[in-house]
This record gives sequence, structure tokens and C-alpha cells, in this order.
Amino acid sequence: MDSEPTRVMVAVNESTIKGYPHASISSKKAFEWTLKKIVRSNTSGFKILLLHAQVQDEDGFDDMDSIYASPDDFRQLRERNKAKGLHLLEFFVNKCHEIGVGCEAWIRKGDPTEVICHEVRRVRPDFLVVGSRGLGPFQKVFVGTVSEFCVKHAECPVITIKRSAEESPQDPADD
Amino acid sequence: MDSEPTRVMVAVNESTIKGYPHASISSKKAFEWTLKKIVRSNTSGFKILLLHAQVQDEDGFDDMDSIYASPDDFRQLRERNKAKGLHLLEFFVNKCHEIGVGCEAWIRKGDPTEVICHEVRRVRPDFLVVGSRGLGPFQKVFVGTVSEFCVKHAECPVITIKRSAEESPQDPADD
Repeated sequence: MDSEPTRVMVAVNESTIKGYPHASISSKKAFEWTLKKIVRSNTSGFKILLLHAQVQDEDGFDDMDSIYASPDDFRQLRERNKAKGLHLLEFFVNKCHEIGVGCEAWIRKGDPTEVICHEVRRVRPDFLVVGSRGLGPFQKVFVGTVSEFCVKHAECPVITIKRSAEESPQDPADD
Repeated sequence: MDSEPTRVMVAVNESTIKGYPHASISSKKAFEWTLKKIVRSNTSGFKILLLHAQVQDEDGFDDMDSIYASPDDFRQLRERNKAKGLHLLEFFVNKCHEIGVGCEAWIRKGDPTEVICHEVRRVRPDFLVVGSRGLGPFQKVFVGTVSEFCVKHAECPVITIKRSAEESPQDPADD
């Protein structure tokens, strides 16, 4: 048996409904599934690597009321976004500490699919867990799915955890 | 934490190179990966469900020298194939017993993709592990991949474990 802990990367993102600092339903579900079904009571056997791929808000539409008058304003925006991401990660890191499993958490900006695959190459986890909204083929055309891309392109085993029907909001694209 | 063990279905098949009772390189790899990276020392926390989907040899080409003169001959052939499948499963069951993790093993005849998805619906494992030869897109056209089908259609989370480059035979379709 391997004495090094199994390194599990879990990709997490913010809720499309409630925004920061709330985690999306699907990434919360993927995280909780990992703890319950894989880690279980063997907390010393695993290390959770929490990656938040933060979509960069290029034109600041999230901040319609803000006024950008100087480069400093943009820097502040970036820092604020980062702070939001940190609050998101705090939720997951706290949970890990509660049950006593080791973890690391970090933020990378960019397209989630590219960011996740890049970080897999860099960090080399034993496997990757991604949540999925469980969209039908029709819905997928419009919203795309990060999980399918990772299954195909990430250079490590990938397990996709779908939300259950009762966890899904009325609009399945919401998360 | 869940007190019921996590039920992990592992799909196993015979080697295309060495035939029965040898396991394919990819299913052996998937099984060993599961023990090493998921089960680890927590043997009471998991139960391994070993499913061997046996491709039915409709025209008996495997047995070119056999003579079939009566319905009994065909029954014997079926029993022989089943015995071969049992020897394959014995390998995996022995490994589980060695490390002390609970297991169940069984054989179902038919198309592996259909058999696996059907058994997932029937048995409801927490997740499914399938091996993969790690074929390129060109090779896939000719041999098809069970793992891709399962990722799309099995009604539970699926994790695909690829063989490493050094484990792969010269012809990557071999296994």
C-alpha cells in the first residue's frame, strides 16, 4: 500500500444563482461525495486539492455601478474578485479541517476547462473530481460542460458527480 | 460519515493476448489502482463488486476443433466458457481476500457496454471503475471503447483508468 496520501483534486466554482461566496450546487455535491464515499474515515490517507478556476470578468459587467478612472481601480477590482474567490475556498477548507483531512486550495483565473487541465498537468493529482449539472443534450448546446471537456482532456483519471434531481433548480443551467 | 461500505463496481475482462484465465492489462490496472488509491488501508470501508461481462462466442470460433453433434455439446461449451470466466474472477477475488476487502463477483453474458450499464442499474454501486487501453482517435474507430460508452450511459459516477505507456503492448488494441 502507498504511504503517500492519495491526492484528489476537486474543481470548485461559485453559484450562478447566489454568486460569491456561495459554492455552486454541483461543486458542493462533488466535494461532499468525495468526503463521504472516498475519504470516509481514512482522513490521513487523502489530501484534497481544491482548485477554483475563476472566470475573469473582462468588462466588469458584474460591477456595473463602479467607475474605473485609473489603473488602480482595475487593480482593486481584481483584488476584490480574488477576495470573493478566497471566501469561496474558505467554505471548503473549513469543511476539510472539520473532518481532519489535509487540503490545499488556490485560485487560477481563466477559462475553467483550460485552467483545470493545466493545473492537472502541473500538480499531477491521482484523480480529479468535477461536479456536473447533469444537463440534457439540448441544454448542453447552449451552456457547454466543463466536466465533459475534463473527462476527455485532463491527464489524469476523472470522476464526474452529477447533482441529484431534487438538488437541481428549476432552470437546470442554474447552479 | 456513511457506515455502509462504499460499493465500487469494477468491470473486468479477459486478456486479448493471453486469453482466459488471464485478465486484460487494463482491467488489472483499474482494479489495482482502485485498491491502491481508493481503498488503501480502509478495507472495511469498501466493497468491491467484480463484474465480468463475457462476450458470447456465437459461432464457437474459439473452439474450431470441437465437434457439435447434439444440444449437449453446446451446453458443455457454454459451461466451459463460464468456467473460464470463473477462473478469471478467481484472480480478482483472491486479491481482495489477501488484503481483506469484501467483494462479490459474477459473470453476465452479452455485449460488455450493455451488460455493464444494465448491471449498474440493477446493483446501484456508488461508482464504477473501468479500464481503458488509452487508444488514439484513429484506433478507436476500429475497436470502439467500452469505457467511453460507460462514462456517457452508466447511471452512476464512472472513473476510467488508462494503462500506462510502459504497460501497453506493441499493438495498442491488444490488452
